[in-house]
Amino acid sequence: MLRKSHKNAPCPMARGIERVGDPWSILILREAFYGSTRFDEFQKRLSIAPNMLTRRLNTLVEAGLMARRQYSAHPPRDDYVLTDLGHDFRPVLLTLLEWGNRHFAPEGEIVRLVDRHSGRPVQVALVDTATGKPITEADHYIEAGPAASAGLRARLEQAACATQTHTGNTASATGAF
Amino acid sequence: MLRKSHKNAPCPMARGIERVGDPWSILILREAFYGSTRFDEFQKRLSIAPNMLTRRLNTLVEAGLMARRQYSAHPPRDDYVLTDLGHDFRPVLLTLLEWGNRHFAPEGEIVRLVDRHSGRPVQVALVDTATGKPITEADHYIEAGPAASAGLRARLEQAACATQTHTGNTASATGAF
Repeated sequence: MLRKSHKNAPCPMARGIERVGDPWSILILREAFYGSTRFDEFQKRLSIAPNMLTRRLNTLVEAGLMARRQYSAHPPRDDYVLTDLGHDFRPVLLTLLEWGNRHFAPEGEIVRLVDRHSGRPVQVALVDTATGKPITEADHYIEAGPAASAGLRARLEQAACATQTHTGNTASATGAF
Repeated sequence: MLRKSHKNAPCPMARGIERVGDPWSILILREAFYGSTRFDEFQKRLSIAPNMLTRRLNTLVEAGLMARRQYSAHPPRDDYVLTDLGHDFRPVLLTLLEWGNRHFAPEGEIVRLVDRHSGRPVQVALVDTATGKPITEADHYIEAGPAASAGLRARLEQAACATQTHTGNTASATGAF
């Protein structure tokens, strides 16, 4: 199937997901955060076919989220480590974790975020760094930035009015986001 | 291509991305947050083939992120609206937006999050709701929850030690996350 690229789409979300827009890539990143670096570790832990894994790792390396690192000179062997860009993706995984735990963990939490110092399970929220207030649809919307086209600007102005009506979502209700 | 399902994988991230694990699905959700509801709006704004759009909308409806709503009785016509589960996905999109803006917007921000009341552009951060402190790799890690298997528990304990060494990522450096 021919797949359209969103790498240069006029949207940071599209540009972002283009780099990881595949369940396997996200799971490989998850494994990398869990400490996996070697091909056989990723393969074993994800039960992924070698050719699929090779392709996804190459994509993540090309996109700059992971880097090859030589861990043995004789024989020459590479493994895969997260770059700064890859580490910076962690909040996306953590919000996904939160969403998944909230809605798709009927048997209880399988994994959870914990404070390293106290061992206390942590509930995360997305806040405005300037005020510390939670981000909600009622209080925050996406507007056109300085680099937006006139067309996108017009659309988003329309959207801002339209979305103002939704305030009763689960997230606002629980106060988590 | 036969695709493995992660819907019941022992991981909330895997269960979550399984529902939206495709660039188009994320872009459809983005458009829904921008106010699109009708098939032809999604199609026009995303330049997506009708059969692709139909398939993705059906997947999002089955996964419970969107719902069909009859907007016309004569003739009968449905559109697509976000459910509470779909609205609750917004923080994932917003962290993706932040990541995309930070790394893939050399021409400046095309879209950005704004405070609806003051019009001020908002920088978001993921924080611990109990303390308000930013989530960092140095201070927080993912551990096995009550519903984890013994195997996963052992792996994550190993991982917690391994990842303790990474503290110098971009996110920590900027203090944004």
